Amino acid sequence: MDVADLAELRAIEELKYRYLRYLDLKQWDELAGVFTEDATASYAGGNLVFAGRHNILEFLRDALATQLTSHKCHHPEIELQTGGRATGVWALEDVVIDPDAGYTIRGAAYYSDRYRKEGGAWRIEHTGYRRVYEELEMRKPPEQGGATVTADWWRTDGRSSLGPPPSRGSA
Amino acid sequence: MDVADLAELRAIEELKYRYLRYLDLKQWDELAGVFTEDATASYAGGNLVFAGRHNILEFLRDALATQLTSHKCHHPEIELQTGGRATGVWALEDVVIDPDAGYTIRGAAYYSDRYRKEGGAWRIEHTGYRRVYEELEMRKPPEQGGATVTADWWRTDGRSSLGPPPSRGSA
Amino acid sequence: MDVADLAELRAIEELKYRYLRYLDLKQWDELAGVFTEDATASYAGGNLVFAGRHNILEFLRDALATQLTSHKCHHPEIELQTGGRATGVWALEDVVIDPDAGYTIRGAAYYSDRYRKEGGAWRIEHTGYRRVYEELEMRKPPEQGGATVTADWWRTDGRSSLGPPPSRGSA
Repeated sequence: MDVADLAELRAIEELKYRYLRYLDLKQWDELAGVFTEDATASYAGGNLVFAGRHNILEFLRDALATQLTSHKCHHPEIELQTGGRATGVWALEDVVIDPDAGYTIRGAAYYSDRYRKEGGAWRIEHTGYRRVYEELEMRKPPEQGGATVTADWWRTDGRSSLGPPPSRGSA
Repeated sequence: MDVADLAELRAIEELKYRYLRYLDLKQWDELAGVFTEDATASYAGGNLVFAGRHNILEFLRDALATQLTSHKCHHPEIELQTGGRATGVWALEDVVIDPDAGYTIRGAAYYSDRYRKEGGAWRIEHTGYRRVYEELEMRKPPEQGGATVTADWWRTDGRSSLGPPPSRGSA
Repeated sequence: MDVADLAELRAIEELKYRYLRYLDLKQWDELAGVFTEDATASYAGGNLVFAGRHNILEFLRDALATQLTSHKCHHPEIELQTGGRATGVWALEDVVIDPDAGYTIRGAAYYSDRYRKEGGAWRIEHTGYRRVYEELEMRKPPEQGGATVTADWWRTDGRSSLGPPPSRGSA
């Protein structure tokens, strides 16, 4: 493995990180740019399958509209191939909270991706995952012991409504 | 640090990622291959100690048989040493769900590993962690507000039984 | 990107990992060493702002005194700049448990950091994050279905009080 390979691996990792950042921050226009135009995606462990960047984006924009999401990918195992192609295996952990609909989904999965270099930039040609597990929990109102959302990128500009810990007194 | 060192560090990271993937996917034969034959392991923050690849595997195979697990390692601080040896510090976060026994364990820990290169391949010579914290929660039935498992690598082939979000309508 | 750049990126990542390790393990003296003396910090999504290493440390030492914390940073997007400077974007997921005060906080955020090289060592010049979401849950007693803390770096030396899974019998 030479320095060019190491730089390529890092570029592919950053591609994935941008994908996840744009996804969780609902930056749909930027998100479109990480896919090839003919990209395919398989979400929900294969239940939801889409062909074409346009259709993937339409699904994500709609599906995540009211949700607070955290998709984190770990443990990259990336293989460079000839002809500007690469594959990647990633371990996903995700949290999806819909405060209005009243549910939280948590899970783990393994992604199997394919990447392609177009005009000097890596893009996602295929992404899809299979769940290790997933669980759904209905959110209870805070007065019944449920969790309270105390910060939200959109509704509170990402600021927490929690003060410093009580032990500190007024800071 | 030269390019060979950077490649070695990456190879050791991928070793750890394979270990974690084989562990959570219960691929025991593949998991055996990541350990040296004389490997030692210290789990549960030092409560459960094993010597020899065979004994480590026997424990893991048995202990994790009925569990859905997600072991994720972050923040690698790896040091290459002379003679094909290296050490690694990693931050673990793990979730262990046993739907049948009815409990969930969540926690964080710091791993201190030793690695050894044998015949050109890095293997785990010692692995062990100390908990930052760990908590145990008994799972309630869904009708009492508990979480429902909606996907499972083995029982549902990793597919989610959840449809797209209600906001989307029937997709 | 050359090998020196790749090594610098890795050095900055390890700086962040040490920061997070010292933070969660409450190693305050070591933590001081990762900041420049004129460092600034913006926590709680901008609610809590500090100028100067001394003031940052005083806040953290006090705020986290009684808490069990797990701050994990993912998805590094680091840019080297001229003059020994760099910027970094990271995805945070954190869990904060205060068993005595009886709450758990969980959340996700995006960090925007600035780093500066001083005497050959990278240090944090500014760190701050904006929340994607944050939620607060009051902890119930175990007899009412709440979680039990079963390991703690300080109170149990990081050892779990849980035995091996029931399926294993007495190990």
